Amino acid sequence: MKHGHLSTKDLADFIRERATIEETYSRSMTKLAKSASNYTQLGTFAPVWDVFKTSTEKLASCHLDLVRRLQELIKEVHKYGDEQIKAYKKTKEDVSGTLEAVQSIQSITQALQKSKENYNAKCMEQERLKKEGATQREIEKAAVKSKKATDTYKLYVEKYAAFKSDFELKMTETAQKFQDIEEMHLLRMKEIIQSLSNTIKEIHLQIGEVHEEFINNMTNTTVESLIQKFAESKGTGKERPDYIWNDFCTFPMYFSIFP
Amino acid sequence: MKHGHLSTKDLADFIRERATIEETYSRSMTKLAKSASNYTQLGTFAPVWDVFKTSTEKLASCHLDLVRRLQELIKEVHKYGDEQIKAYKKTKEDVSGTLEAVQSIQSITQALQKSKENYNAKCMEQERLKKEGATQREIEKAAVKSKKATDTYKLYVEKYAAFKSDFELKMTETAQKFQDIEEMHLLRMKEIIQSLSNTIKEIHLQIGEVHEEFINNMTNTTVESLIQKFAESKGTGKERPDYIWNDFCTFPMYFSIFP
Repeated sequence: MKHGHLSTKDLADFIRERATIEETYSRSMTKLAKSASNYTQLGTFAPVWDVFKTSTEKLASCHLDLVRRLQELIKEVHKYGDEQIKAYKKTKEDVSGTLEAVQSIQSITQALQKSKENYNAKCMEQERLKKEGATQREIEKAAVKSKKATDTYKLYVEKYAAFKSDFELKMTETAQKFQDIEEMHLLRMKEIIQSLSNTIKEIHLQIGEVHEEFINNMTNTTVESLIQKFAESKGTGKERPDYIWNDFCTFPMYFSIFP
Repeated sequence: MKHGHLSTKDLADFIRERATIEETYSRSMTKLAKSASNYTQLGTFAPVWDVFKTSTEKLASCHLDLVRRLQELIKEVHKYGDEQIKAYKKTKEDVSGTLEAVQSIQSITQALQKSKENYNAKCMEQERLKKEGATQREIEKAAVKSKKATDTYKLYVEKYAAFKSDFELKMTETAQKFQDIEEMHLLRMKEIIQSLSNTIKEIHLQIGEVHEEFINNMTNTTVESLIQKFAESKGTGKERPDYIWNDFCTFPMYFSIFP
């Protein structure tokens, strides 16, 4: 669960970093569109810069739209992160019984081990005294101690069995609970990622449309139309072959362009 | 032609600025891919970061590919710009005859205007002397001057006609030459722009494939497979419901995750 919340935080960070990248890209594109409108507005090529400008502005707008939608998504991820913390605290309370069972099985296991060692030691002591031919009083005293150790050992074996059963039951329940939480978490994360990839896909399609529009606009911007537009801007209003003639009528200016 | 070369320079600048934007974007994406691999490698979500990392690296690579191809295109534009300058110098030589014709028509026009004014002045002077009853000698002197002015004027009218015819012929040829150059320039610029939009379109398709691949990889990264992978990483090799159980067998560590 702790890693679950970390991964939610990481995902929000990842989307934020991506949003920052897209924002920088969008701003640079806006700047590029301005460059396009600052290029020379003289000559036959000038109207093409409007086509570039419009297209570049639209690209900037697509990426800014992506930024906005990523920011919405980050909010969603944060909201889920908060829900996670709440669920995390609630689950901690819910499994407190399991924590107790864990502590119980830990202490009973230690006590069982200790009583087993004590039992073995007492039995061996009794055997040793018998072999070494100790006094009857000493052997009886050891037998009492051995009997007491056996009873204690038995008691802990029974206690261990009861605690083990309780521990296993609670542990299985808790394991299932954690597994369910994990599955829900992964499902939620996958939903967020799907939302992310849908957004990126939609913006990608929009960008594709901007490219198509640019290609169409360039197809429509024929060499003839550019020369025609230039001729009109020179105010002749006449047919094509005349425009340069008219321009020439201001010849001293025209020839001065030669360095 | 001067504006033509300027527009070629502008187009190279525009593509260079776009290439710089794409390079920055590509670098940021590479950094983002590194972020993805630096996120927590613990928990069930960890393998998803590999999917993000791979996809983000591929996006970075697509944009870097675009940068490389834009740089190739810039070289092409520069090459065309150099050709333009050569053609520009050659044309300047070719039309030197026209320049001379322009200068001739300019000076003949001024001379014609001057001789017309002189002719008018001399005629009026002759008339004035007649009206005011000047001496015969004075009137005859004025008539000689008037005759001389008329001859000069006639000479310039004839000269002007000849020069005008030469000027119009050369000017029409030159105008046609300039128009042809302008058309060739616009065609070449349109070719470069088509090459630019083809490149952008191809990279856009590649980016679309990266998105599709990401979506497919995420579809294949099921909740079940993530939990399975996590269980395997814990080294149980057992069926799903057991993994958390086994994980629990290291319980003191497990519970210590609660703060």
